[in-house]
Amino acid sequence: MITELHYHTISEADLRQYAVSVFKHMGCSDIDADLAADVLLRADLRGIDSHGVARLSGYVRLWEKGRINPKPNVTITRNKTSTASIDGDAGLGLVVAPRAMEMAIEKAKSCGSGWVAVGNSNHFGIAAYHATKALEFDMIGYAMTNASPLVAPTFSKERMLGTNPVCYAIPAGKFDPVIIDMATSAAANGKLEISQRKNIPLPSGWVQTANGSETTDANGLKQGGSLLPLGSNRVLGSHKGYALSAMVDIFTGVLSGANFGPWVPPFVSFLDVQPNLPGKGLGHFLGAMEVDGFSDVDVFKSKMDQWIDRFKKASTIEPSQPVIIPGEPEAAFEKDRIVTGIPLIEAVVEDLKQLAINFKLDHPF
Amino acid sequence: MITELHYHTISEADLRQYAVSVFKHMGCSDIDADLAADVLLRADLRGIDSHGVARLSGYVRLWEKGRINPKPNVTITRNKTSTASIDGDAGLGLVVAPRAMEMAIEKAKSCGSGWVAVGNSNHFGIAAYHATKALEFDMIGYAMTNASPLVAPTFSKERMLGTNPVCYAIPAGKFDPVIIDMATSAAANGKLEISQRKNIPLPSGWVQTANGSETTDANGLKQGGSLLPLGSNRVLGSHKGYALSAMVDIFTGVLSGANFGPWVPPFVSFLDVQPNLPGKGLGHFLGAMEVDGFSDVDVFKSKMDQWIDRFKKASTIEPSQPVIIPGEPEAAFEKDRIVTGIPLIEAVVEDLKQLAINFKLDHPF
Repeated sequence: MITELHYHTISEADLRQYAVSVFKHMGCSDIDADLAADVLLRADLRGIDSHGVARLSGYVRLWEKGRINPKPNVTITRNKTSTASIDGDAGLGLVVAPRAMEMAIEKAKSCGSGWVAVGNSNHFGIAAYHATKALEFDMIGYAMTNASPLVAPTFSKERMLGTNPVCYAIPAGKFDPVIIDMATSAAANGKLEISQRKNIPLPSGWVQTANGSETTDANGLKQGGSLLPLGSNRVLGSHKGYALSAMVDIFTGVLSGANFGPWVPPFVSFLDVQPNLPGKGLGHFLGAMEVDGFSDVDVFKSKMDQWIDRFKKASTIEPSQPVIIPGEPEAAFEKDRIVTGIPLIEAVVEDLKQLAINFKLDHPF
Repeated sequence: MITELHYHTISEADLRQYAVSVFKHMGCSDIDADLAADVLLRADLRGIDSHGVARLSGYVRLWEKGRINPKPNVTITRNKTSTASIDGDAGLGLVVAPRAMEMAIEKAKSCGSGWVAVGNSNHFGIAAYHATKALEFDMIGYAMTNASPLVAPTFSKERMLGTNPVCYAIPAGKFDPVIIDMATSAAANGKLEISQRKNIPLPSGWVQTANGSETTDANGLKQGGSLLPLGSNRVLGSHKGYALSAMVDIFTGVLSGANFGPWVPPFVSFLDVQPNLPGKGLGHFLGAMEVDGFSDVDVFKSKMDQWIDRFKKASTIEPSQPVIIPGEPEAAFEKDRIVTGIPLIEAVVEDLKQLAINFKLDHPF
């Protein structure tokens, strides 16, 4: 039987205030607590519910286990004109990544582009938060991260890679920017969670069992299976999804001095970190390129508008379903939720309420 | 009935000499003819048969139509410390792109990274040729290009994007470098051509009909259909393949001043270029990043070896089929074909022989 999900809607301001209070309770500075909450709330506003406050107690549990340092001393370990590496000192990715992105933007101002690899970090929320910071400077923004191993390479049944997202944020003129923010797996983990909660089967091509057979069981992953790379199987190109995920893992993990592949520390606190790790924490890779480094900004924006306009007008298969420009659905969510509030499912509300009780914090639930 | 393909094997040296003579006949300088032939032969050596000498007569036909300038005056239209744009003057992508890559590498030597957008160009062969140039300098190489529109975005039945490949070349230590070179469509056009020639049906998920229905007809594309993005359909994530292809189109086409989307000039000479183009020719985007800009080179290479070793040992679904490292199959082809020669199907041999007769050139067929 399909389980109906019930939602409670909380205003963005109330939810933000609560998230800030949780991060402060963890020992974050005021500035860091505001920043971390801003990253989570941006996910909720943009409709990426799996990466917003629904993850708040996950971060808390990692902190309780000593795996998140609320007062990190972020250091620069390598610095060239257009490139750098930083060590996040086991801080929240939510505060380490924005600093790295700031550094990338400063480099881009000075020489056209900036690229910062981040090691010894933790989960950084939605990639789009970081990449879109470049837009206000008329730059193209990049963000990627590796993550807990859940995805099996083509021909394997072993969890070797995270859902390893890539994000590109590209400015436009009269239209909203083009924002591509995508897991390199066939389905993001958040989509699986929804199917699990609703008790509905998965489409074939998202998950395989522990033996490597395709399954539509929403609990297939929990039962030791793995997510499939974008492309789902060899014939449809899963080797491409695997290769993209590998690229993300190498840029974020190997280049930065973080862990990589199956050694990436799990986000869930009940799974232990493996022994003999090749690096520290997990890794990100942030980048910014000035549009002006390649083209007149006005010319570029006007051509981007032409690009967007033409793609919106591409002839459709069903008249009712136009072609979507990457980032359009999230922009629509954001415009709506900033006014109407953020709908949370009951399980998340209960979880957040319990956290407030444990920590003796005011809460809006 | 399945058509058996017959192959003629020609030595790499003979085929190279012939290709050089064709490019010289077109009016290319000695240096450019050698370079263009080198790019094509590299594809044949690496087993990317669709992008090697099989395309030679395609380039010739574009030259005959005046769409390829054999003596281009390549100019720099924008130049910052780490970024630049160049205008290829309608030259062969085979010679314009290597120059852009050289420029990207020089920039990376000076400031850690270099990025060059190329407009007013033509098809540049395999992306891996260009990206791998970075490897000898202990750099990570990037290459992408847009191409003739054949791919429909999710929900559309219109050809709006090329198979728009991305390539990342990443140095390793004792192992071969990791080389990811992939079309952002579910299947590259070369794979379709093989099915057409063999007269076998396609897997479902590669091509849709002109109405947007899935088809397994190997001639579905010729009959007005379109290729599907990586992911094949919305549920399996075709919006991600579409978004990646869009990213490539924007970086290579919009940023560089080339054409983009449905306006990219077709590779086949019998299709006319559209009127009122938004740019010039087609576009590429080349990049290089010094490993040393992020990490000690030796440390990085040794960790890459650890990465590769671990992925090669990932537990497999079938004992006989290990996990493949991106670039491994192509490296194996290259090691073999440099010794044993390059197998060409009869249709390609006939085409090349006819070209030799028309141009009164010596040939090895």
